[in-house]
Amino acid sequence: MTFTLQEIAERIGAQVRGDGSRVVEGMLGIEEAGPRHLTFVANPKYRPNLFTTRAAGAIVSADVPEAPVTLLLTREPYRAFAQALRIFHPERRPSPGVSPDARVDPSARLGQDVTISPFVCIGPHVSVGARTVLHPFVVLGEGAVVGADCTLHAHVSVREGCVLGDRVILHNGAQVGSDGFGFVPEGDRLEKIPQVGIVRIEDDVEVGACSCIDRATLGETRIGRGTKIDNLVQVAHNVQVGENVILVAQVGISGSTTVGDRTVLAGQTGVAGHLHIGADVKAAAKTGIISSVKDGSVVSGGPCMDHRHHVRVLAVFKRLPEMRSRLRRLEQEMEARGLGGLPHDRKGGDPGESDP
Amino acid sequence: MTFTLQEIAERIGAQVRGDGSRVVEGMLGIEEAGPRHLTFVANPKYRPNLFTTRAAGAIVSADVPEAPVTLLLTREPYRAFAQALRIFHPERRPSPGVSPDARVDPSARLGQDVTISPFVCIGPHVSVGARTVLHPFVVLGEGAVVGADCTLHAHVSVREGCVLGDRVILHNGAQVGSDGFGFVPEGDRLEKIPQVGIVRIEDDVEVGACSCIDRATLGETRIGRGTKIDNLVQVAHNVQVGENVILVAQVGISGSTTVGDRTVLAGQTGVAGHLHIGADVKAAAKTGIISSVKDGSVVSGGPCMDHRHHVRVLAVFKRLPEMRSRLRRLEQEMEARGLGGLPHDRKGGDPGESDP
Amino acid sequence: MTFTLQEIAERIGAQVRGDGSRVVEGMLGIEEAGPRHLTFVANPKYRPNLFTTRAAGAIVSADVPEAPVTLLLTREPYRAFAQALRIFHPERRPSPGVSPDARVDPSARLGQDVTISPFVCIGPHVSVGARTVLHPFVVLGEGAVVGADCTLHAHVSVREGCVLGDRVILHNGAQVGSDGFGFVPEGDRLEKIPQVGIVRIEDDVEVGACSCIDRATLGETRIGRGTKIDNLVQVAHNVQVGENVILVAQVGISGSTTVGDRTVLAGQTGVAGHLHIGADVKAAAKTGIISSVKDGSVVSGGPCMDHRHHVRVLAVFKRLPEMRSRLRRLEQEMEARGLGGLPHDRKGGDPGESDP
Repeated sequence: MTFTLQEIAERIGAQVRGDGSRVVEGMLGIEEAGPRHLTFVANPKYRPNLFTTRAAGAIVSADVPEAPVTLLLTREPYRAFAQALRIFHPERRPSPGVSPDARVDPSARLGQDVTISPFVCIGPHVSVGARTVLHPFVVLGEGAVVGADCTLHAHVSVREGCVLGDRVILHNGAQVGSDGFGFVPEGDRLEKIPQVGIVRIEDDVEVGACSCIDRATLGETRIGRGTKIDNLVQVAHNVQVGENVILVAQVGISGSTTVGDRTVLAGQTGVAGHLHIGADVKAAAKTGIISSVKDGSVVSGGPCMDHRHHVRVLAVFKRLPEMRSRLRRLEQEMEARGLGGLPHDRKGGDPGESDP
Repeated sequence: MTFTLQEIAERIGAQVRGDGSRVVEGMLGIEEAGPRHLTFVANPKYRPNLFTTRAAGAIVSADVPEAPVTLLLTREPYRAFAQALRIFHPERRPSPGVSPDARVDPSARLGQDVTISPFVCIGPHVSVGARTVLHPFVVLGEGAVVGADCTLHAHVSVREGCVLGDRVILHNGAQVGSDGFGFVPEGDRLEKIPQVGIVRIEDDVEVGACSCIDRATLGETRIGRGTKIDNLVQVAHNVQVGENVILVAQVGISGSTTVGDRTVLAGQTGVAGHLHIGADVKAAAKTGIISSVKDGSVVSGGPCMDHRHHVRVLAVFKRLPEMRSRLRRLEQEMEARGLGGLPHDRKGGDPGESDP
Repeated sequence: MTFTLQEIAERIGAQVRGDGSRVVEGMLGIEEAGPRHLTFVANPKYRPNLFTTRAAGAIVSADVPEAPVTLLLTREPYRAFAQALRIFHPERRPSPGVSPDARVDPSARLGQDVTISPFVCIGPHVSVGARTVLHPFVVLGEGAVVGADCTLHAHVSVREGCVLGDRVILHNGAQVGSDGFGFVPEGDRLEKIPQVGIVRIEDDVEVGACSCIDRATLGETRIGRGTKIDNLVQVAHNVQVGENVILVAQVGISGSTTVGDRTVLAGQTGVAGHLHIGADVKAAAKTGIISSVKDGSVVSGGPCMDHRHHVRVLAVFKRLPEMRSRLRRLEQEMEARGLGGLPHDRKGGDPGESDP
């Protein structure tokens, strides 16, 4: 499929500056693009590349001045880029049908135009909504409910009784509804607490590869509408995640914690159990959250603190050796002037070094 | 299935205070429970909810005073809760049988009453114990041994030669026996060291979704009896984990490290290789363990230290900007009084900022 | 298979000191080895065990003196150990053939002597190189290209259009080519950015169990020749990993970051997006990399700094409570001598404690 720059501009609501008749067949990054490509600049630091790119055209912010390439001017270039990408790559659903190599329990209900690939395993009393696509090696446990227009990629499990809304995407190897991690000591053993709740995933949620969302002990583990979860994320039993939350790769959330709407937890952040993380919170990568966090907070560090304060703390942290020298110097001067009697920096005697 | 509160109380060894004749059909959390539910309070901070819950009854600690709900009094409410849950949700094993859609090597030995689901793949010389359940997409490599009464959920691999005891539960996507991560430089290449050992998992172990336990280079990687491993945990080659250990989600243990009995490593903790972590150790979430740890230690931080000391260190850490101001003030005063000659806080000159 | 120590020594280029006629049937660690085993000592701290081992012989460094066991002396004992291991455990490829229980699209091209196990699913226009082994539950998406002599273990996905070189090993549950994590806000929703690029994995790469390598938004996510990736590693979209890089378990690399040749990122290290990590960099376990890192740097900490500086900082960090006491003492002395007027350590008033 090819388009003129003018055609693209019209469909994404951009203004053309330059030759709109040039024909493009796809999009590439500004350094990789050739004369048959459209590219984009969302981050101003890449604007100089507009003078060296081989691309036929570039989607840019409306305030970009002249450039030796046709410009598609728009207020929100990143959003326009996503729109243009969808023009070149319209969603392709595999043709509907139930593979004879799938095993579908006779009590399961399949909606219209579902795609059930080979080696899919659908248990009793499962419901699959219209147009949903199940890739190979997907297993749906007894009584699971999958909405319409979902895509479950290869190696996904949805365990018994779990419920997915519409337009949910589960990437390869995502595991929904495994047992929560709950044990109670019985003498010298750890006795398993039955995990009899479910996972409920609302509409428009996306879950990354090999992410794990545990079923509730009682009730539901919930992922709110529109939330996006990256790869290798752990969501423990009874966690309640709000709407349009972003959980970046390798985040872990412990049991029964709630996360408010639009909150963003960056990569490798960990959250302790039974906490309330507010709405619109931002946590930097690797944050360790061990107490509840108010709406709108920006936090970082482990244990976490207000991010601006953390930045100030880290600035001093890096200079600790220098600070120690200055302190020692002061002590020496005090002593030299007969003002002191202070103990100097001693070797040993630090409980932190000897205890463990 | 329904029960009277009196019936439940008898089976969990609790005393009824209030109306034991009320009928319940299940358990729910204290806020979700309705008039046909039993609930529980293990954590004293939820006791006020006993005055607002709609539940018919609540399992509580024996020292809980009056409440407007029937109380099932017990010394250990959390344990009693787990017992009651097992009454409402007795373990359901799928009906035994070998699916015609499984592929079982003729040399494999299957115990009595095993359940082999569709799309299970069992290699040569594998042994599967009585009553073990293999869910779809389980693969057992050549010579693997699985004990009796195990449950291997969908997408589990047990690689060649690995051995599982009885009553082992492997959750969805758990991978047992992949190659350890061992390479030796050969000129400018990294040459693979064959990983010819196995993984041995003892009785009553549970392994979470997408957790990975690597086979040993030589000998065995071992997970001791009764140990519970959460999701997305990494156990490297030749690690020796003791009995009744708890490894919370996203923990990683490097090669050849040993972990003593009853030790608990909280979420996202990392342990370096070739260390000895003692018995009864507790490591807080996100701890970084880079040297061996004695029995009974409580550690936190990265690199880790005694936890109580770490708490004191963190209290000061948070106030570093203030401490620097105080130090600077002292220096200024000294100087103002002609006592000084000390260098003040300089910009730049910090090797930590410039080197990397 | 059995060998004399002399035979082994000749094949690994070692010199025998002692009885080379002893027969061995395998290798084990120095504590586990018996009289029919060969063992090795690469780390000098294990040399005393040469006096207690029951092994018939030991591969050791050429500078090891007498020992009561036959010694195979070599300059590089670890490398010689790996060589010897390959003698005892020659690579066994399963017999070639395409299982009738695999589903192979008729348009797929399969090289000579491939092994396609039961329950493998190969999409349209896929190419699989000669002698490549696909274990059960491997899925290759439309147009995927897998080179020669590869091994894809059970539960591996290679999504549509992704390309693997020769001799690539993907361990159980590794997921290659899932969508990158890219969204753009549209009002109160997060709109998915189509991820239309691929993953390219070059020759001799190994990827660990349950590791995830996301496809590029545009263009390629690339893993360079000879790179070794451990388990549960996250490589985000458009990341460019160089050659012979080592990514240890649970590392996460954010989008569009580049990693230079021979760089080693130890376990649980996280790297932010759009950074340049140089060649020959070493990052300690749990490092948090939030800015670009120059070639040859050794870094640790979160946020990371030069490792030697970090060690000095941590030495002071552990003593912060003592430092605070010393500072307070100085202040008190100043004040006692009428030199001060300084504010003392106050309770509260710390923005870091109150803000979140």
